[in-house]
Amino acid sequence: MFVLGLDPGLTRCGYCVLDATDPGSPRAVALGVLRTEPTATVPLRLHELQVEVRALLDEFRPRAMAVERVLFQVNVRTAMSVGQASGVAMVEAVATGCEVVQYSPNEVKSAVAGWGGADKVQVQQMVQTLLGLAAPPHPFDAADAAALALCHVAMAPMRRALDGSTSR
Amino acid sequence: MFVLGLDPGLTRCGYCVLDATDPGSPRAVALGVLRTEPTATVPLRLHELQVEVRALLDEFRPRAMAVERVLFQVNVRTAMSVGQASGVAMVEAVATGCEVVQYSPNEVKSAVAGWGGADKVQVQQMVQTLLGLAAPPHPFDAADAAALALCHVAMAPMRRALDGSTSR
Repeated sequence: MFVLGLDPGLTRCGYCVLDATDPGSPRAVALGVLRTEPTATVPLRLHELQVEVRALLDEFRPRAMAVERVLFQVNVRTAMSVGQASGVAMVEAVATGCEVVQYSPNEVKSAVAGWGGADKVQVQQMVQTLLGLAAPPHPFDAADAAALALCHVAMAPMRRALDGSTSR
Repeated sequence: MFVLGLDPGLTRCGYCVLDATDPGSPRAVALGVLRTEPTATVPLRLHELQVEVRALLDEFRPRAMAVERVLFQVNVRTAMSVGQASGVAMVEAVATGCEVVQYSPNEVKSAVAGWGGADKVQVQQMVQTLLGLAAPPHPFDAADAAALALCHVAMAPMRRALDGSTSR
């Protein structure tokens, strides 16, 4: 069972595919960043990103995509750009029947590092430990994507239990 | 030659298809708002929007889509949501070979109402006049989409001339 974590962006879009067949010991089968041509127009960069995300979905057929629910951003311009990239990624996932789940930065940090105030380096180190990687994942966008996927693996049993209790 | 103006949003996405075969007297052939189910999740609402935008593109095969370039928004949450909707709409257009052009709110207001400080009611009234409509288009999102399409029709000759001079 694969889970795709995605940290959307046009300059760098972090991604991590986890094999969570054994949820107690998830394994990274793909980890890195997608980049788009910085001199191209926004619509064409979004199209590039769409093609790359579609390729990941086609290759791994993840059961779920975990994406950050961005509530606060440094500035509106960044929020727009992250919004555009995340919107494109999320509809691609929906089109393949992949469940899309959004997590807040606090949920991700709590799940991975044990507290919501963890910084990027701490998250990066915890991802390295949890996935048994030889080195911390670089850049931060890749580590953040891995943290999102790990957060989903950790939260999924509780989400299923809650869904079950509310649908009764 | 059709031009699609789009004012992206998940609650209300304004759209206007102009027949600009005679650029001096463009005619609205479709004008309204797309809505998505407010109780659904964001990924599913984006998917709904994608289906609707795709249907417009399939029906009218516009040569260009004009979308607002949002630089400032009231809050980051709105910016994220507008970004997600505009990202989805723009990649749909790119996938059909439709040119996507972004205009700032100032460019749109200047083109339609004569000055960049025009308010929403003035834009609405100018759209009614320019398109010879019996009543001002409602809601504002539909009027804004029409203003975007009108802006593109007004600016396209200049854009072509500029492209020509820089590609020489």
